Amino acid sequence: MGEVAIVGVAMTRFGKHPDVPVDNLAREACWAALKDAELTPRDIQAIYCGHVFQGRIVGQQVVKGLGISGTPTFNVENACASGSTALHLAWTAVTAGMIDVALVLGVEQLSSRGSGVIPPDQNDLEGLLGRTNPGTYALMARRHMYQYGTTAAQMAQVAVKAHQFGSLNPHAQYQNRVTLEEVLSSRMIADPLTLLQCCPTGDGAAAVIIAGAERARRQTAKPISIAASVIVSGYPKTGGSDITTHPSTKAAAQKAYEVAGIGPSDVSVVEVHDAFSIGEIVHLEDLGFCPKGQGGSLVASGATGPDGRLPTNTSGGLLTKGHPLGATGPAQIVELTWQLRGQAGARQAGAPKVALAHCMGGVIYGRDAGACTIHILHR
Amino acid sequence: MGEVAIVGVAMTRFGKHPDVPVDNLAREACWAALKDAELTPRDIQAIYCGHVFQGRIVGQQVVKGLGISGTPTFNVENACASGSTALHLAWTAVTAGMIDVALVLGVEQLSSRGSGVIPPDQNDLEGLLGRTNPGTYALMARRHMYQYGTTAAQMAQVAVKAHQFGSLNPHAQYQNRVTLEEVLSSRMIADPLTLLQCCPTGDGAAAVIIAGAERARRQTAKPISIAASVIVSGYPKTGGSDITTHPSTKAAAQKAYEVAGIGPSDVSVVEVHDAFSIGEIVHLEDLGFCPKGQGGSLVASGATGPDGRLPTNTSGGLLTKGHPLGATGPAQIVELTWQLRGQAGARQAGAPKVALAHCMGGVIYGRDAGACTIHILHR
Repeated sequence: MGEVAIVGVAMTRFGKHPDVPVDNLAREACWAALKDAELTPRDIQAIYCGHVFQGRIVGQQVVKGLGISGTPTFNVENACASGSTALHLAWTAVTAGMIDVALVLGVEQLSSRGSGVIPPDQNDLEGLLGRTNPGTYALMARRHMYQYGTTAAQMAQVAVKAHQFGSLNPHAQYQNRVTLEEVLSSRMIADPLTLLQCCPTGDGAAAVIIAGAERARRQTAKPISIAASVIVSGYPKTGGSDITTHPSTKAAAQKAYEVAGIGPSDVSVVEVHDAFSIGEIVHLEDLGFCPKGQGGSLVASGATGPDGRLPTNTSGGLLTKGHPLGATGPAQIVELTWQLRGQAGARQAGAPKVALAHCMGGVIYGRDAGACTIHILHR
Repeated sequence: MGEVAIVGVAMTRFGKHPDVPVDNLAREACWAALKDAELTPRDIQAIYCGHVFQGRIVGQQVVKGLGISGTPTFNVENACASGSTALHLAWTAVTAGMIDVALVLGVEQLSSRGSGVIPPDQNDLEGLLGRTNPGTYALMARRHMYQYGTTAAQMAQVAVKAHQFGSLNPHAQYQNRVTLEEVLSSRMIADPLTLLQCCPTGDGAAAVIIAGAERARRQTAKPISIAASVIVSGYPKTGGSDITTHPSTKAAAQKAYEVAGIGPSDVSVVEVHDAFSIGEIVHLEDLGFCPKGQGGSLVASGATGPDGRLPTNTSGGLLTKGHPLGATGPAQIVELTWQLRGQAGARQAGAPKVALAHCMGGVIYGRDAGACTIHILHR
């Protein structure tokens, strides 16, 4: 099986774009990614579109606007990990040598669908009864505080750092900086998580073009290799009361490190699924970047900020870059590609060689995430 | 790349099951397919779930009930071709050798979602303005009559034949026989298509387990090989006024025959996407089973019926077996597997060696189907 590399990336600015149709958002990202890859739509051999709420065959609507026809198009849904799941499927086909160039698209136009927030599905009994994502992560936060002494200030620091990076990212939904005090005193959403510790809803699109290694080398001077693409689904919650960890993340990370032949200490820059501040702390632990329970002090130490040893969510993360569901996974890959190429502008994190993207989503009673993906990239 | 074979198939009876939750429907099909394959859920290395309206991460909900965890799960949507698209993605991963055993699931519970009929999506401007599927196929029928002399009786004969087969299929939504007169005098839906020439909405699930060739041979005495799995998307309508053909079907068929190294005359039994009677006639032409314009007389000749040279939709087809969107593609594969194994009971079509499944769906302005899949199977 052949190696696969990223040859083009792009994204729209994330934010509230209620008047921009979903296919316009998507095409903006696609055209820019094609330009970045110096490819035309005709070079694309398959399209994998990750989204959650965009209706039927949205990928095909986008493709029509690219002026190509016949190209196999797949719409993929795995809740908040829809876009990264689409990348995994594209990577599968290119790795297998079935196709040589694939376009991965993630898109979400939440403003114009329903109320603009994420409604629980009618199959999601717990969600319908009130166990929404903020509530679930609040429980996780409280338990983490109790069990490991994590403080409200440490969690709030995640949001301060996110805004620090977000203020340097022209694609971020929020580009303002905030103080620790502002985070802590913002409106309470689900105790102890205040407003600025919860990701916003929004609209946006991100596109990633991948190619077989040989084609990639012909295509670009700076191909970014995909060293691992791993997905796991539906791990059970760990036994007893330990709600301070995601078994899915641990399992996926272990497999990804094994496939890539590296360990956590080899990773220079990382994007994790920080839908809530406590999430980033837990993910950093589950990914092996610090011992269990020490995520809070890791963040407080500045290690995950600018000039830290492991800059985390340099894009601003879901907290400030935004979280248009389907677009989130590909957007993480866009940011990490820019970092590995040295194109991340004011938020460039040195000269990283290895990057890791972690994305997850989908709540089912008694289960951990419906899908958790890990992608390890290197230059 | 390795060969791939079908080792287990099953489906629920299609019909109106408003009180059966979607995951129960799905699990019934999954357990039966596992039993058919003599496998346990732990043998499954990935799950590909095709559906349209079942909400978020429905595949994961089903998997939870199978008592397994961690197994990568993908939800795939390509309108009426969602389930066959899921099969293509599973086939890709097994062909690549990334996994050895995959479960493909198609499921739809329309009765309990919305009004039980298929609403146009908010992105589908033409649909919202009234160009629904029955209207579109009625235009196709009128033009076919004008251009090729196809008669109302020939089209109605498709429904008579569908009910003939459906009456022999215990999994079909409708198991009654009807006369030509009954078809022609049933309520007019979109002139010239009467009620009995339009597929019903309904609920149901179908499951297909595939494996690498070596594993398949160990697993079953009657593996059914997948000789071709082809998908195309979004062909433009052919130029001018020719609305009597689906360019997607022609393109996908050409590629599938090429990959399988066969021609239409080698096919012994076929399932086509007969959402409307005229559809079956057009598909038979586009698949090369008769010259363009002669689909009506092919059907009238009895060639596609029991004891004909090309038994078509022996399951009863979408018209009588039913059309629970996501389940339709896998259900076609279930029927053809039974035919190739000689397990189709009273509707067994001799001892067929090669079978073809054609599935399509997804309407976009100015384009042919959003996705069209062809699978060629042989024993």
